[in-house]
Amino acid sequence: MTVPAAAWEDLQRRLASLENSQQANTADPNRLNLVVFESHRDRLLAAFVMATGAAAVGMEVTMFFTFWGTATLRKRAFIGGKKSLVERAFGWMLPAKNSTKLSRMDMCGMGRMLMDREMKKKNIADLDKLIETAADLGVKIQVCEMSMQLMGIKREELIDYPQLDYCGVACFAENAANANTTLFI
Amino acid sequence: MTVPAAAWEDLQRRLASLENSQQANTADPNRLNLVVFESHRDRLLAAFVMATGAAAVGMEVTMFFTFWGTATLRKRAFIGGKKSLVERAFGWMLPAKNSTKLSRMDMCGMGRMLMDREMKKKNIADLDKLIETAADLGVKIQVCEMSMQLMGIKREELIDYPQLDYCGVACFAENAANANTTLFI
Amino acid sequence: MTVPAAAWEDLQRRLASLENSQQANTADPNRLNLVVFESHRDRLLAAFVMATGAAAVGMEVTMFFTFWGTATLRKRAFIGGKKSLVERAFGWMLPAKNSTKLSRMDMCGMGRMLMDREMKKKNIADLDKLIETAADLGVKIQVCEMSMQLMGIKREELIDYPQLDYCGVACFAENAANANTTLFI
Repeated sequence: MTVPAAAWEDLQRRLASLENSQQANTADPNRLNLVVFESHRDRLLAAFVMATGAAAVGMEVTMFFTFWGTATLRKRAFIGGKKSLVERAFGWMLPAKNSTKLSRMDMCGMGRMLMDREMKKKNIADLDKLIETAADLGVKIQVCEMSMQLMGIKREELIDYPQLDYCGVACFAENAANANTTLFI
Repeated sequence: MTVPAAAWEDLQRRLASLENSQQANTADPNRLNLVVFESHRDRLLAAFVMATGAAAVGMEVTMFFTFWGTATLRKRAFIGGKKSLVERAFGWMLPAKNSTKLSRMDMCGMGRMLMDREMKKKNIADLDKLIETAADLGVKIQVCEMSMQLMGIKREELIDYPQLDYCGVACFAENAANANTTLFI
Repeated sequence: MTVPAAAWEDLQRRLASLENSQQANTADPNRLNLVVFESHRDRLLAAFVMATGAAAVGMEVTMFFTFWGTATLRKRAFIGGKKSLVERAFGWMLPAKNSTKLSRMDMCGMGRMLMDREMKKKNIADLDKLIETAADLGVKIQVCEMSMQLMGIKREELIDYPQLDYCGVACFAENAANANTTLFI
């Protein structure tokens, strides 16, 4: 058949419009963002189980640590250095990675201890192992700069993690727009 | 007009590329996933109100129960059978569906009782009614296998629900990639 | 070249199919929904920091206040008028905007006071300033009608906000389907 010139132009226009809208929609179904706001050990475990599980099946995972979550990325709860009195108080009262508590049934550490024992017994990876796996699988960790500033947490206090980066709320917004799934934990 | 062979081939290539990227982007705007992590009654109510509301307007809803949330799907808090001492302790301390507490103002059950009374008085569906409606509307419930294993919860302890299934973190990741919206509750 | 009629028809069909599926997928990557369920000051701060941050980089932001979150939009905790005894109790026990507590380290207001002081000292905007900025940036606030009814909160008790609206779960479902990102806070 002979294609009418008008029909051909119409076709080109529709194709271009589809291609444009495809480029505008940048949300990748295989990207997962986790905003870690809380510092409870159960939530941290859930976050890292989801992060490593998703990364293991090929998803690109970014964890954004903010507010109380930021404090849990510290090697230990109390580190000296030039800090104001209030910053020292924050440092002392907030849990570091290994002193995080369960959100319920913690019972001054009893519940936590039982939970740890059950996890070991049943071959469920603990927090340290999960963080190691996350690093191996290329899970990115981003730390909220405003939270660090607010609580007076210094970069040298944070755990050693290969893909650790510092960022603000604009960077969070960009991540949210680029990934299909963003969870607030 | 006569279509040049090169232009025709270019057209075919662009169409195929658009079709491929459309297939890769499987995130369905009409799918909603709810990850139920907590066991507080207010959060369970919120989860089931959102699930039934979304299902009522035609969305496909999947609820994924994990960690403390898993325990709330039990018929009752204590069920015998072959369990270790720690598993028994979990069973005894964690709330089953009808013994879930409010996250605030519970006041040993007083606040919960008042909330229940207000809901009844104002014709707001309670948890049992919401679960029934969810089942009628085809809301799927998936239970995290790792959580069941960790807390020693057996399948026969869970409520009777027509679309209840068991799954792991890989299944969660697939659901997240396939739905436009996933909430962590 | 001469285009075969069958090939031309096939092309038209594929284009139409792509256009249909594009229209069905209405999830806008530049839209962000925040479901504010909790009434803790730290979560409110996080919600408004994300809302204003995202709006500042050009995203369209909608905040949906439900359950305990609804109560925090009140000007003050106790407002008279025709209320049942239980509604009065809710009004008295739930925090209004300026009496919200931290979810941890509140210590009867001590931690809150220190947090406020640190924020001021470090030039981090407080809740009142953030709400003002949100209004300026066109962040929409929607209040869950069922929660207002349940807790007996009247419209005149809520803060003055230019883009405040009332809506139900159907409206939440529509928002979720239309935005790429929805967070439950």
